[in-house]
Amino acid sequence: MNIGIIGSGVVGQTLGASLGKSGHDVVLGTRDPKKLDEKRGFGDSLAGWLAKVGKKARVATFEDAAKHGEVVINATAGTASLKALETAGKDNLKGKIVIDVANPLDFSKGMPPTLTVCNTDSLGEQVQRAFPESKVVKTLNTVNANMMVAPGTVGNGDHVIFVCGDDAEARAQVARYLNDWFGWKKDSIVDLGGIEAARGTEMILPLWVRLMGVMGTPMFNFRIMR
Amino acid sequence: MNIGIIGSGVVGQTLGASLGKSGHDVVLGTRDPKKLDEKRGFGDSLAGWLAKVGKKARVATFEDAAKHGEVVINATAGTASLKALETAGKDNLKGKIVIDVANPLDFSKGMPPTLTVCNTDSLGEQVQRAFPESKVVKTLNTVNANMMVAPGTVGNGDHVIFVCGDDAEARAQVARYLNDWFGWKKDSIVDLGGIEAARGTEMILPLWVRLMGVMGTPMFNFRIMR
Repeated sequence: MNIGIIGSGVVGQTLGASLGKSGHDVVLGTRDPKKLDEKRGFGDSLAGWLAKVGKKARVATFEDAAKHGEVVINATAGTASLKALETAGKDNLKGKIVIDVANPLDFSKGMPPTLTVCNTDSLGEQVQRAFPESKVVKTLNTVNANMMVAPGTVGNGDHVIFVCGDDAEARAQVARYLNDWFGWKKDSIVDLGGIEAARGTEMILPLWVRLMGVMGTPMFNFRIMR
Repeated sequence: MNIGIIGSGVVGQTLGASLGKSGHDVVLGTRDPKKLDEKRGFGDSLAGWLAKVGKKARVATFEDAAKHGEVVINATAGTASLKALETAGKDNLKGKIVIDVANPLDFSKGMPPTLTVCNTDSLGEQVQRAFPESKVVKTLNTVNANMMVAPGTVGNGDHVIFVCGDDAEARAQVARYLNDWFGWKKDSIVDLGGIEAARGTEMILPLWVRLMGVMGTPMFNFRIMR
């Protein structure tokens, strides 16, 4: 299927590589598609990424990626998300499922990061308000990029991933994508209801970051015992 | 051992009952110790509590409870914690471990609750700042009262409890208490370091509350898979 990814850092690259390799038609949207050789934070250069993913994948503008996608994934840094999606274009996102995997982390004051929005609002809600004709579904933001696409690498995949969004059918569809695309087990996917629940999933990031420091690895996730 | 509990709602009662039944000398501090017959929120009346716990337990003022405790537990509602501990008396808490199990939940705007403090500060830090000569250790605030005292009732006790506080020896001591008093497994207790980490453990409450709604039970907890 045609998938547009907004954001070409490690998260966008990891999602795009996984989707491209399993045969999806991926366009990775980036601010300046001509800068193919520049290393991207923790990610590869886009030239390196293209070489890895195979023939069908393309690197393009945010706008082209959004146009291309039947589904669009927001994989930008949380602080840049609204602007990047605005650049991608409201009309290009209209009527589509927008999977928001970003976190509103503010690293500007050093570690550990704080959140730019929380408690009475969330990035997920901000995106939904800014794009009312899109179906925003928040998910995958509670795990590391490598875990997003390969949950089975940790604890046999027996750990939880949250889905929330105001459109119930879109949530169910994204749950199917998580299972089909990346192998998230069906009973590991927890539907939290409306997009307001993004407050909760974004607000576990401070604990997540602290745990990463204590455990010395980002390759972990929560399982719910009951 | 002599344990003072500040707060006589369901959390204080549950902790006190468990500790009293295992032979500790518990004083449950309450705003007005004469109101023994009044039902306490989700908890019992204090007369009912006393009948359940046995001879050694007492109900007294916040001040008396703090004086009595070699260790003092803050089990008040988060919005009332600072005032209750102030009433308990700085001198009565001086040099002692203060175990803070409270959450700064604001139910005044309805459900789900928001937090009165988060992101750049936490209740744990506020308590530590207000009582600099006490050793504040935040723990148990991420689970329901019944889970606090009986982790084995869910998932064989294989789920996580966080400890943080600025005094490393106090954290280690509280970890031993969690194991001795309530049966938390040693490898389920995660030391997150300084009290600043209370931001993280308090900020999972919005997700916790949402999950309780989705699952229809407060009897659950997170396990970390790695």
